[in-house]
Amino acid sequence: MEKQNGYLTLELLSDIQLFYSEEVSSDSIILSNDEFHHCTKVLRKKIGNQIFITDGKGKIYNCTIETIGKKELKAVINSSISFEEKFPNYIFCIPLLHNKDRFRFAIEKLIEQGITRIFLFKAQRAVAEKINIDKLNKIAIETLKQSLQSILPEFKFVSSLEELNYYKGHKIIFDQKSELKFDKKFINESEPHYFIFGPEGGLTEEETESLLDKNIFSLADNRLRSETAIIKVASILTL
Amino acid sequence: MEKQNGYLTLELLSDIQLFYSEEVSSDSIILSNDEFHHCTKVLRKKIGNQIFITDGKGKIYNCTIETIGKKELKAVINSSISFEEKFPNYIFCIPLLHNKDRFRFAIEKLIEQGITRIFLFKAQRAVAEKINIDKLNKIAIETLKQSLQSILPEFKFVSSLEELNYYKGHKIIFDQKSELKFDKKFINESEPHYFIFGPEGGLTEEETESLLDKNIFSLADNRLRSETAIIKVASILTL
Repeated sequence: MEKQNGYLTLELLSDIQLFYSEEVSSDSIILSNDEFHHCTKVLRKKIGNQIFITDGKGKIYNCTIETIGKKELKAVINSSISFEEKFPNYIFCIPLLHNKDRFRFAIEKLIEQGITRIFLFKAQRAVAEKINIDKLNKIAIETLKQSLQSILPEFKFVSSLEELNYYKGHKIIFDQKSELKFDKKFINESEPHYFIFGPEGGLTEEETESLLDKNIFSLADNRLRSETAIIKVASILTL
Repeated sequence: MEKQNGYLTLELLSDIQLFYSEEVSSDSIILSNDEFHHCTKVLRKKIGNQIFITDGKGKIYNCTIETIGKKELKAVINSSISFEEKFPNYIFCIPLLHNKDRFRFAIEKLIEQGITRIFLFKAQRAVAEKINIDKLNKIAIETLKQSLQSILPEFKFVSSLEELNYYKGHKIIFDQKSELKFDKKFINESEPHYFIFGPEGGLTEEETESLLDKNIFSLADNRLRSETAIIKVASILTL
């Protein structure tokens, strides 16, 4: 296996093109489907070219393309670098939003900023359509690659907010009407926190009451859209 | 002039529908065009109904519809409440972005969070099309109303970053490669700050060098999209 030019550093990782594959063995990786197409047809990579691939589980590999078939390519691994999950204790609980662009944007901005644990729920006041899990994963992979990260987020569906009572950790609700302004200093990074956001129109009283233990904070004096509140909290916590 | 039910409080302002008009006299306001249509045709407001209108200059008025014509309505002012500009010292300098949705999103999220001073420039690495100032103002008015704010932002076009040297105040550039992590504590709210963001691909060395005095900060270890960096900084500063 050729090792020259195979050294992988963090500095290298600001201008690269990153690919994604789940087919990783000890010394080589297979790229197929969209990733294969993008690599060979759009970027016109050839045998011998160096490419970077993440497995979505915390590793980024420096590879060299060894063979290119009709539907997939095989790349040998030169080196790899491992990343820790940045914010395992921050769980964002977000409602399905009626507006798909805004929902997509919220998900994208969470992932870009390193949030890897996302709970989704159908809020009582939300008129959201059924979620397409394949589309959601596609957005996640796209964002991971674009923002040069290596841990694919985990989506979990909860049937109602009440279900969150079964999870151990602090429950934080955001509501414009709360007199307590949110501050990062209230958050102890070493303990699990569930950050809970309402849809347009807010959470219902029933939903808020269904959480046994919680703190309610406001983010601004004025009204914020749902995705704005979500992105704002992620922006503050991940700095 | 009927004054009952005319008392305007901040608490009232979390669930209202806000309209926008520039035609404000001492005791009445005219709603025309889109605003008139939305008020009378979509929301079916009638003579005698109470509505809320902002002038985009810091005031929100509680009014009662007095007459409804074919193209406009007249509402008498019951009471008003004045707001100060929240962040007059935070000037966001953002490049025209090729992706219109992302550009729109950045503008919208700035305004929602109370940023009222926005400079726009054509970055050397940006392949942005010409900006439509009417569309920009429409987005601004829409966001103002939606987020229940009352100060319409001021957009200014600068031909290049070099022009910023003529403005007094701190110049802050964001670049992933900077070793200095941004922190709100570096910012003295009582002095003007120009927050400067690059397009996809970043600012060129020429652009960065053209600013005589500046500080360069990073926002994350990984790559962030342009609009993500913009929204992140606004999220942090406006909390």
